Parts: sequence; C-alpha cells; structure tokens
Amino acid sequence: MKKLKRSSRLVDMTYFLLQHPHEVISLTHFSERYQAAKSSISEDLVIIKEMFEDEGYGALLTIPGASGGVKYMPRMNKDEAETLVHQLVLDLNKPERILPGGYLYMMDVLGNPKLLHEVGRLFAAALYDKEIDAVMTVATKGIPLAYAVGQHLGVPVSIVRRDHRITEGSMVSINYASGSSDRIQTMTLARRSLAAGSKVFIVDDFMKAGGTIRGMVDLLAEFDADLVGIGVLVEAAEVSERLVDDYVSLTKLTNVDAREKQIELLSGNILDRLH
Amino acid sequence: MKKLKRSSRLVDMTYFLLQHPHEVISLTHFSERYQAAKSSISEDLVIIKEMFEDEGYGALLTIPGASGGVKYMPRMNKDEAETLVHQLVLDLNKPERILPGGYLYMMDVLGNPKLLHEVGRLFAAALYDKEIDAVMTVATKGIPLAYAVGQHLGVPVSIVRRDHRITEGSMVSINYASGSSDRIQTMTLARRSLAAGSKVFIVDDFMKAGGTIRGMVDLLAEFDADLVGIGVLVEAAEVSERLVDDYVSLTKLTNVDAREKQIELLSGNILDRLH
Repeated sequence: MKKLKRSSRLVDMTYFLLQHPHEVISLTHFSERYQAAKSSISEDLVIIKEMFEDEGYGALLTIPGASGGVKYMPRMNKDEAETLVHQLVLDLNKPERILPGGYLYMMDVLGNPKLLHEVGRLFAAALYDKEIDAVMTVATKGIPLAYAVGQHLGVPVSIVRRDHRITEGSMVSINYASGSSDRIQTMTLARRSLAAGSKVFIVDDFMKAGGTIRGMVDLLAEFDADLVGIGVLVEAAEVSERLVDDYVSLTKLTNVDAREKQIELLSGNILDRLH
Repeated sequence: MKKLKRSSRLVDMTYFLLQHPHEVISLTHFSERYQAAKSSISEDLVIIKEMFEDEGYGALLTIPGASGGVKYMPRMNKDEAETLVHQLVLDLNKPERILPGGYLYMMDVLGNPKLLHEVGRLFAAALYDKEIDAVMTVATKGIPLAYAVGQHLGVPVSIVRRDHRITEGSMVSINYASGSSDRIQTMTLARRSLAAGSKVFIVDDFMKAGGTIRGMVDLLAEFDADLVGIGVLVEAAEVSERLVDDYVSLTKLTNVDAREKQIELLSGNILDRLH
C-alpha cells in the first residue's frame, strides 16, 4: 500500500476494524500497513473511537502492553436498541404470521441479512463483557441468527442437527423432550464441531417451553463446554412450565390465538440486559 | 448528530456505506446527516471511493440525477480472490475431511462467519453486473453461504426446506431426483417467501450431479422467478452426467477416495468469472 494521508487511513482503518471485531490489532500492524508513525495511528484511532462511541457502533478498547493494541467491540446504545426492538415488535405483531401450534411465520425476518445484522449486534452488545468462544444453534431457523451474532463476536458457529441425513463423521447425540409436544427427539452435533472448554452462547429464533434449548444445554455438557448465555428472537410467554430460566429475548409473544386470529407481541427482556 | 469535521465524517460514511451495499444513498442524506455542504460530501466520497477501489473493497458508483447519489457495490480484486480461493483449497484439501459417499466435512468453514463473509464478497464480486432480488439455498449447510452472499448484495435469502416439520403456511413443493442417490426427494418453499418475477441467485455448499440445484431451479419456475446464476463452494468434478451446466464454483473436488483416504481439491472456475 502506498503511503496514505490521514483521511485515507481513516477510511481503511474503519473498514479493517469492522472486519475484525473482538480481535486485538496492534498499532504496529497499522503503522506498517500505512507506513505511518505510531503516534499518527494513535491519533487516527482517537478519531475513530470517538465516532464509534458517539454513534453507538461499539467501543474501541485500547489494550496496553507489548501484545496490546486496539480491539473493536460492537455495541448498541439504548436508543437504537429500543428502536430496533420496536421495529421488530411492529413487524412481528401481525395475525397473518400465526401458524398452527401457536408459532409465527418469521422467514422474512430471518431471511433479511441487513435486519439480522443489527439483531446480531444487539445480542453482541448484551454480551459485551462476556468471554465467548462459539455460538450454538439448532438447524434451521436459528442459523441466520447465530451467524449474525457470531459475526459481531468474531467467533465460529456450531449448528446442531435434528436430522441424520448426512453424517459429519463422529457425532454426539442426545435425546430431548420438545416441551411443546412432549415428543422425544434427537439432536446431534459433530464431535469435531466444538472444542472442550468452549464458552458458548446459545441462540434460537423461537422459544416456547424451552425443550430445544434445554437439549442444547445438555448437549454442551457432553462436549465439556460452558454455557455463557441464551438468546432468542421470540419467547412465547404464556407457558406454565419453563425448562430454561436465564435467557435474553428480543420480543415476547404474550398471546396468540389461531382461531380468533389474535396476536399480542411485545418487547422482550433485552432492554434491561443492555449495558 | 453534531456538525462533524471531514475526518469524523469519513469514519461515519465508511461505516454507513458498508452497512448499505447495493443501495443508492443520496448526497442530501449525507449532507443533512452531517450538516455539511454537498460539495464537502462529494469530496469526502472521492476519498472513500479511491480507498475502496485501490484496496479492492468495492466500487462506489455515482448515480447522477435527482434520485441519484452513491452506491457501494462490494467487489474483490483478482489477487485477493486468488489468495482466498487458495486458502480455501489448502483448508479443504485434507483426507480427514472425507465423509461417506464422497462428501466433505466442511462445518468448520461453513460455521466461520469471518471466512464466509469474504466468500460471500467473492460471489457478490462475480455477480457485480447482475440485477439480483434474492438469494436461494436449501437447508442446512447452504444457509451460512446464502446469508453471506445476501449480505453483500443487500438482498433477502429464501431457505428451501427438505423436511416438513413445521409448516410455514401455504407451501410450494416439488419432487426432485438427488442425482447422487437416485432417490426422489421433496423440497418446499413457503409461497410468501419469494415474489413472482424475482431474480434469484442460487447457492449451495456442495454440488455433485446437481440434482438438488436442479430441484431449486425447477422450484424457481413454480414461483415465476428468474434464475440469475448458480454458485457453489465445492463442485465434485468426477461426475459423468451433470444436471446443471452454468455455475460458479470456488473449489473443485477432482478426486476423492474414502478407502484410500485420498483427496484432490483444486480451484474452481470463479477466477475466470471475475470482472
């Protein structure tokens, strides 16, 4: 790269930091990349830090020491989080979304990468201070969500399977009770998918009694992995017996009546969990 | 937002453009956002355009006229594309990845959001001049890929299902022959998932005889949608009869022998398809 002026450096550094969330980038890296003095790089980073923090894009942490540098940590400020949650509520709170069994049609939301990118940032913001090694979800509808969260956290995604169509080599399976239906089902994850000791955040699109998520928690134990947290896009609130207690939800389905075509969906608990 | 200096504006505009690929952003939008003259904004954009194009992040197209502005279109230059493809080849070309039936274990690659983000950009770069309304894939392993491509193209993702566990309302189903196994299978997409007339790019992780992709092409016809292109992460090359002719592949599996634990994987045809 040819030697750049500050204005050009700022553009490139912004791009670079956004591609490397939760990674420590040394000042030396930038200094060599742009053939600029470390003092100039430091000044550049002050400008970026100020903009990122003023606009709520995230924090730019300075890590001192020889193996130090800067680390971009995506966040979201309360105003923007409220706006996003309210947008989701407005979008999801529609009778035409009601499916048999009290589920909601959400494939338009889950299939919207731009919206999910912001949803992922919101979850990442709530996990701001936690050490996370992987995001876990179960196929199929949780996958876009897990991917969006994993992107902001800079960590891989483990996709738990419910079918046995194609083997992925040595598999770990557990049986779980899908709480809503009392059926015993099986979930499977390739042994090589998740390292022992991994700190894992579990996400899913919809949680009713929590049987599926409970299954994933049990599966984590089989991998000697640690549960850091649980996040769902929608929690169905009218459930007498919940198998999962501590989780973050973006929205809450408080009432759904397929016959009367009535639905009531509100904000979830996420806004209380933001820093 | 308070009135910003050029250096701060450049950071915010870079962030903003990266969140809005393939969207026309008017100069007025930026001018109002930063309380800056349009002439200043134009100068800012020249700086960003130069950096984006020099580094191969993408093009910043100027659209003239009243409803004009700028549009960020992610691209990748040939050098970076070659490096990425070679990295994928090195990564995938390992005997321990071989699965029964000549398939490859790829969940570590598919579950790596950072790597997939670059893979998505590479596909988007190959589709640079095409008008695309949606990306389609079939659950499960194609989903992270489709999401990454959709993100760079700024379009939604349609996920075709192979199971019938949960209904998504009115569904469209077609039967297809999974070429590798000669079994008749069913694939399904919710009617409301895809608008008629949509221009669709189909992606999948692995293509052998192309039966699954052929099925998705047939499904497109049921939606009166148009096929723009097909992209796969891995094509298995030793197939006598291919059901799909025109596609883009990042890598090509030229030989796989589960018993001898031998594998040969090379670059696909993507590098010839880049502009």
